[in-house]
Amino acid sequence: MKALIISADGFEDSELLVPYYRLKEAGVTVDVASLKKGAISGKHGYAIEANHTLQEIKPGEYDLLVLPGGKAPEAVRAAKAALDIVKAFFLDNKPVAAICHGPQILVSAGVMRGRRATCYKTVAGELRQAGAAYEEREVVVDGNLITSRQPSDLPAFMREIMKKILRKP
Amino acid sequence: MKALIISADGFEDSELLVPYYRLKEAGVTVDVASLKKGAISGKHGYAIEANHTLQEIKPGEYDLLVLPGGKAPEAVRAAKAALDIVKAFFLDNKPVAAICHGPQILVSAGVMRGRRATCYKTVAGELRQAGAAYEEREVVVDGNLITSRQPSDLPAFMREIMKKILRKP
Repeated sequence: MKALIISADGFEDSELLVPYYRLKEAGVTVDVASLKKGAISGKHGYAIEANHTLQEIKPGEYDLLVLPGGKAPEAVRAAKAALDIVKAFFLDNKPVAAICHGPQILVSAGVMRGRRATCYKTVAGELRQAGAAYEEREVVVDGNLITSRQPSDLPAFMREIMKKILRKP
Repeated sequence: MKALIISADGFEDSELLVPYYRLKEAGVTVDVASLKKGAISGKHGYAIEANHTLQEIKPGEYDLLVLPGGKAPEAVRAAKAALDIVKAFFLDNKPVAAICHGPQILVSAGVMRGRRATCYKTVAGELRQAGAAYEEREVVVDGNLITSRQPSDLPAFMREIMKKILRKP
């Protein structure tokens, strides 16, 4: 099994590191893609290696997409290659998990219409404007889409992610 | 099921947060005990609430003890109440998991003689002096004792912790 995390400088450290380590615990191969290859830095100073550029990613090779929050989604949502990856996951109905500001990338990819979802409270407005039904809950699962609000939701977020990918054939 | 994390200011953030969220994901109740009640701060600036003082802890109520690293173990190992908790876990043969500088607390509690274990590389000397057989591996399991070296070992560390506590009746 293979997971892809897309992020950039300014990521919310725990929202990237907790899924990263949790997926590896389960034996999942985890790739990190960003605008360019090399170390990206979190708000709290953790560094993690982006081992791929967005351009290099073949979405068909992955079973899960994770979009952490922080300031990173602001940069990621401006990259067409990231939005193309998101759309490919949705077209294949494959699991996409976004937390905090991560759903901003989904808004820019235009995949939120008619979806139930949550996000960081300041992002709720643009989620609604994009046609989603915003819910104030620790985790919302709607088909392939798993969303959470903030770091304290990570236990529920990871529980639903692991359920979703371990159910896969 | 109930887990206890003992730490203090200066903890290595990911070594506390990853176990904290992972255990909660599995439905485990997690208490955090420190020298005094209230927020403790990690090296990277994360704050977590210590909801108990060390003195308040009844070790018999817990199924797992976790000792994160960073600078915190230096303060924790000087607290007799912490060492008494560690000894109680070992006497009951209950799971104790320590990472990075966390094993320093085990050294001070005098429970390392004849044990196979690992730790952060700069701590290896005092582990050996305490009578332990130091191993340079991502995780070492010896009976009730689970030890790891550093944050990048967290997947293996958590995998062994979860195996150990989920095997419990």
